[in-house]
Amino acid sequence: MLERLKQEVLEANLNLPKYRMVTFTWGNVSGIDREKGLMVIKPSGVPYEELTIDDLVVVDFEGKRIEGKWKPSSDTPTHLLLYQAFPEIGGIVHTHSPWATAWAQAGRGIPALGTTHADYFYGEVPCTRRMTAEEIHGEYEQNTGQVIVEALRGLDPLNIPGVLVHSHAPFTWGRNADEAFHHAVVLEEVAKIASRTYALQPDAGGMDQALLDRHFRRKHGADAYYGQAAKQ
Amino acid sequence: MLERLKQEVLEANLNLPKYRMVTFTWGNVSGIDREKGLMVIKPSGVPYEELTIDDLVVVDFEGKRIEGKWKPSSDTPTHLLLYQAFPEIGGIVHTHSPWATAWAQAGRGIPALGTTHADYFYGEVPCTRRMTAEEIHGEYEQNTGQVIVEALRGLDPLNIPGVLVHSHAPFTWGRNADEAFHHAVVLEEVAKIASRTYALQPDAGGMDQALLDRHFRRKHGADAYYGQAAKQ
Amino acid sequence: MLERLKQEVLEANLNLPKYRMVTFTWGNVSGIDREKGLMVIKPSGVPYEELTIDDLVVVDFEGKRIEGKWKPSSDTPTHLLLYQAFPEIGGIVHTHSPWATAWAQAGRGIPALGTTHADYFYGEVPCTRRMTAEEIHGEYEQNTGQVIVEALRGLDPLNIPGVLVHSHAPFTWGRNADEAFHHAVVLEEVAKIASRTYALQPDAGGMDQALLDRHFRRKHGADAYYGQAAKQ
Amino acid sequence: MLERLKQEVLEANLNLPKYRMVTFTWGNVSGIDREKGLMVIKPSGVPYEELTIDDLVVVDFEGKRIEGKWKPSSDTPTHLLLYQAFPEIGGIVHTHSPWATAWAQAGRGIPALGTTHADYFYGEVPCTRRMTAEEIHGEYEQNTGQVIVEALRGLDPLNIPGVLVHSHAPFTWGRNADEAFHHAVVLEEVAKIASRTYALQPDAGGMDQALLDRHFRRKHGADAYYGQAAKQ
Repeated sequence: MLERLKQEVLEANLNLPKYRMVTFTWGNVSGIDREKGLMVIKPSGVPYEELTIDDLVVVDFEGKRIEGKWKPSSDTPTHLLLYQAFPEIGGIVHTHSPWATAWAQAGRGIPALGTTHADYFYGEVPCTRRMTAEEIHGEYEQNTGQVIVEALRGLDPLNIPGVLVHSHAPFTWGRNADEAFHHAVVLEEVAKIASRTYALQPDAGGMDQALLDRHFRRKHGADAYYGQAAKQ
Repeated sequence: MLERLKQEVLEANLNLPKYRMVTFTWGNVSGIDREKGLMVIKPSGVPYEELTIDDLVVVDFEGKRIEGKWKPSSDTPTHLLLYQAFPEIGGIVHTHSPWATAWAQAGRGIPALGTTHADYFYGEVPCTRRMTAEEIHGEYEQNTGQVIVEALRGLDPLNIPGVLVHSHAPFTWGRNADEAFHHAVVLEEVAKIASRTYALQPDAGGMDQALLDRHFRRKHGADAYYGQAAKQ
Repeated sequence: MLERLKQEVLEANLNLPKYRMVTFTWGNVSGIDREKGLMVIKPSGVPYEELTIDDLVVVDFEGKRIEGKWKPSSDTPTHLLLYQAFPEIGGIVHTHSPWATAWAQAGRGIPALGTTHADYFYGEVPCTRRMTAEEIHGEYEQNTGQVIVEALRGLDPLNIPGVLVHSHAPFTWGRNADEAFHHAVVLEEVAKIASRTYALQPDAGGMDQALLDRHFRRKHGADAYYGQAAKQ
Repeated sequence: MLERLKQEVLEANLNLPKYRMVTFTWGNVSGIDREKGLMVIKPSGVPYEELTIDDLVVVDFEGKRIEGKWKPSSDTPTHLLLYQAFPEIGGIVHTHSPWATAWAQAGRGIPALGTTHADYFYGEVPCTRRMTAEEIHGEYEQNTGQVIVEALRGLDPLNIPGVLVHSHAPFTWGRNADEAFHHAVVLEEVAKIASRTYALQPDAGGMDQALLDRHFRRKHGADAYYGQAAKQ
């Protein structure tokens, strides 16, 4: 069942240690089949070096395990809520990658400071508000999804394919698991370069809107001309 | 004698260079068999790349060598004192990992700034006070253990499985050598992310208590639900 | 056609990931044959790990594709304008290497702070001005070349073989693709060391002119005496 | 001739890229045979990946090439002067390792902030004064040696086995080439940790003298008790 989706989710999971995005088991990738109403996700606490396709867990949209021998990631309710809120997306990645996590711990969104950012994120990568004690004591993982959705309000999730959860770490997403993985790496790189930019220039003012527009549209949308798939 | 314990201690020692936690011979791991009254520890100054199970040293609780061809680590008295003071622990790691060591040199404990920290350390990782000239001139390594115990006073060592020794470097521990190794890596990662957080936000206020509670208890204690071994 | 040039351009492109200068496809190298009026360049968006000599694209000086199955790099017009403006150069590299990119995002040129810099760059590595909205909305990639040329005005491009494009990233060049690659790595290293220098000493004043002269001339020009090719 | 010394010098040179101490050809190692009046040193500008024992150059104490097909390192006169001034030493390493180089560019010595430092350097690693224009225009490499000797005045070079040359980079030394290599790595690590310490604590006050004494003497001198060679 879902062999192709599982393969994609497996590869994206294995890319996390390969690209040095995770320490130990600190991360997870999921992918969704919206027609079948099923999500494939990494099992909780299983080391990446041991992970095979048979370890992946299939759950339905209520989080009930449909297939797999392991418990799914403890972040499963966050993933499910994001898929529900963002119908455009097909894959989600969560990591504690250290540069992006520093921004999350600082409680700051990452402003668009240059074209590396603008090639993937059409504006600031937002940071959620702090969660309330009630939200934390209650359905914590689901409520994590809620504050992410709140932070993305008014934004197109494919234009801003990632977020920082306050005092926690980043989530990224995309049309599929591979794209979500790419955005996780990009966000870490963007967070690193932004940190170093502010170290050099604490009052760095950000890039011009025209440049942000140009670079994002070079890679996205009807007028894209970067890469081989683009029309032009 | 103690083959299983030796194997655990060997693997944890070899994990230090593998995870880039040590330069040259700057680190050591020990494990204890409390019933037999014996500790297994790395020999002093032997390079990790040459280390085999036969190089490990077995000492009794007074530090007397029982087995092995080498002198034990010069930090042996620190390890022994910690095992004596913390009956819950079964493994200890000492490194000079560079991010944690910077905090030790700054003489600052690492506050809980995010969930990466809270998943393993239930509050600030303390830094010891400076040792007095008397303590340094006397039984230095044993006294290093004493100031660690003093810094942990009132804390459960399994809830705060590590410490920074002022002007020196970190020690971590756990129920066994492998867990102590894990905590060494986590502490280095937490120190790195905390340094980067303060660079971005010098007055970063720390995480909320509710979030600290939630994340620590997700992974530890009777109500843990992270990983495959958890009840839920 | 142009097999030797293609081989050089291929090797320089493959050196970028080998030296950790690029993430994903974020970079490109070109080389020129001025007699034949042709430029060889990386195709747009093709991953380095899959890149073979047959993937390279040959364009004429108007940017028209003469050979190759792929679209050339979207930065092709920038390369062409630089070759036109700087007749001395034979290779160009563009990356988003993270230290140099931080300086570009900060909008600051990198002053000559030490001999590592002086061995390759005879003075500050300049940062371009911000581009205007008109320049960005118009022939953006070509105009990127124009602001680079403007930033190099009055300088010998072989004495200052690199530049930071404001809010974007570095370009470097040299007498051939391999030299341009070397300068890309040097610029990243110089940017890193300069960032760390200012972190230690925010008012670091730069190196003495005599030392700058000595080191640059040890490696360049008629009196060079570094390396085996030098006269002395 | 000098096969054993050459082997030592070769291995120490090859260790530089292995320990990520050099970019391209930015470094060199030498060793001396004082009885024969000869020094073995890396050739100028030869890549480490191609370096074999036959590429090493033998010079006499005036710098005249006695054996070898290549020109010796352009830093040869610096090495020779240091061997002359410091009769205790048998090996010298020069690198542009990026953390130590940042301190050199900042023109600051590295204070003893912790035991990592104290295990190898018995006090601050000094930074030379700036060289005068006359010194730079004259016998530059020899004069580099002179300002190093001046910075070490009153110090035992085996107790402070390294220095930062202002606006340039580090030199380290030891009783042989291997020890000099070790000190190069230690200096880079110490520079890194010190930079991070000051980032956390700009007024970090340094370690206590008693602790500095204890750690240096644990590893050096008649009362050393670290490692297997120590008496105790």
